[in-house]
Amino acid sequence: MTRIAVCAPSTPILPEDAARVTALAAAHFPGVTLDIHPQCFAEHGHFAGSDEARLAALLECANDPAYDAVWFARGGYGACRVAEDSMARFDHVAKDKVFLGYSDAGYLLGGLYRAKIGRPVHGPMLADIRRDGGEAATLRALAYLSGEGAAGIESAVGQGHPVVAFNLMTLAMLCGTRLMPGLAGHVVMIEEVSEYLYAVDRLMFHLSAHLGGISGLRLGRVSAVPENDRPFGIEPEAIVRHWCERHSIAFLGAADIGHDADNRIVPFG
Amino acid sequence: MTRIAVCAPSTPILPEDAARVTALAAAHFPGVTLDIHPQCFAEHGHFAGSDEARLAALLECANDPAYDAVWFARGGYGACRVAEDSMARFDHVAKDKVFLGYSDAGYLLGGLYRAKIGRPVHGPMLADIRRDGGEAATLRALAYLSGEGAAGIESAVGQGHPVVAFNLMTLAMLCGTRLMPGLAGHVVMIEEVSEYLYAVDRLMFHLSAHLGGISGLRLGRVSAVPENDRPFGIEPEAIVRHWCERHSIAFLGAADIGHDADNRIVPFG
Repeated sequence: MTRIAVCAPSTPILPEDAARVTALAAAHFPGVTLDIHPQCFAEHGHFAGSDEARLAALLECANDPAYDAVWFARGGYGACRVAEDSMARFDHVAKDKVFLGYSDAGYLLGGLYRAKIGRPVHGPMLADIRRDGGEAATLRALAYLSGEGAAGIESAVGQGHPVVAFNLMTLAMLCGTRLMPGLAGHVVMIEEVSEYLYAVDRLMFHLSAHLGGISGLRLGRVSAVPENDRPFGIEPEAIVRHWCERHSIAFLGAADIGHDADNRIVPFG
Repeated sequence: MTRIAVCAPSTPILPEDAARVTALAAAHFPGVTLDIHPQCFAEHGHFAGSDEARLAALLECANDPAYDAVWFARGGYGACRVAEDSMARFDHVAKDKVFLGYSDAGYLLGGLYRAKIGRPVHGPMLADIRRDGGEAATLRALAYLSGEGAAGIESAVGQGHPVVAFNLMTLAMLCGTRLMPGLAGHVVMIEEVSEYLYAVDRLMFHLSAHLGGISGLRLGRVSAVPENDRPFGIEPEAIVRHWCERHSIAFLGAADIGHDADNRIVPFG
């Protein structure tokens, strides 16, 4: 039995998506129970409920001994508004759990990793069911959560160095905050979505100044780049290589992560 | 006589805009000479010439004793790619000059202020001539550069605390880099343009973690906010107050700066 609690620290999901993933879990993983916190459907401006409501649901899921794992429902934006407060209020029960998500959930994964609470894992979220190929993505997450997920793990994991994976924007925003984990010796994987290439370059200017001492950087997919009024003139890999070179960071090649259905699982550490 | 050199460390301007501002300067400030470096019209992908070309033009303008001031032509994006290298190559001549610009030019203003080179000043750029009311903006800049500009200075300047002014994104990206000046005791003014409110909130999460010890924060205009798929639910001033409160930063009210023709002048320090 794997008992999974789902909450939404960022933006809400739709009941129909929750129903689809619940049915998928029942069909493929009879040993899994999926409890979707009603907060996942709340709406408060941009967010899945107020800061207080999102924090309360996250703490309920993490601090309830009935659950083995906390699965973040969806990204968007908002986890950074509750992450610092949550770290101070996770109790000993949270320390044994897997926390799975990516994108905006990275604020929580980063904070958990810094605080050595539970096992933060980058991987698909419930809302990925809406993507082309979304069933495969959510099944990959459920397989990992149920302990059968080795096939879904990114191939650079377990190669000798500890690893983390983040959305580029999220990791750049974490730098210097109380949620930023120490990444010395780590292979750091990044991916991005829906950002102009000039913004990717700008984020790399910032991030690369904060990654001294890492083992190396891997670049996942940079997808859905909006068209600017003129071409940027430098492709994503060349951007990342440029800033790695300036800071003597080893560029290690591609990572099989991104805002898509192929997004692989990266357990931190 | 005030001799002004114009270069473009970010994106290019059009010859017709240069001609308009040159004519305006000649008509209103006969004591001013305006030398527009040909690099201002260069194009290299997104940028006004390659990194090497933009760096070379910046150094020519800054290190030439014939000029009293360096006026940045336009923002956009790109100054952060040449700023660190330029700091190491400005010579003693640069130390007596005014450097005027804002927006993406903030990477240079921040680095100059940190390195105590010249007088970094936030204020209108040549390309502001294209705005509604752009003549007033460029005349404000020219008046300041010619030494007659007291009327164009932001009203919180000279009230007892040193001041700086930055685009929010630019200052957030400066944090933790080799260009970030120490801001302890400063009144920090910020403004933003063309960013979603969730992005403003995210930038404030990041920036506020880096502003410990400042005297207080003032908020300029947050303009041209794109419409999101749903309303964010928190207005810019409330966003800034939220993050100031979390970090015990004094919120001091409005600043008369922004990406518009009313943008006032803020000499750093």
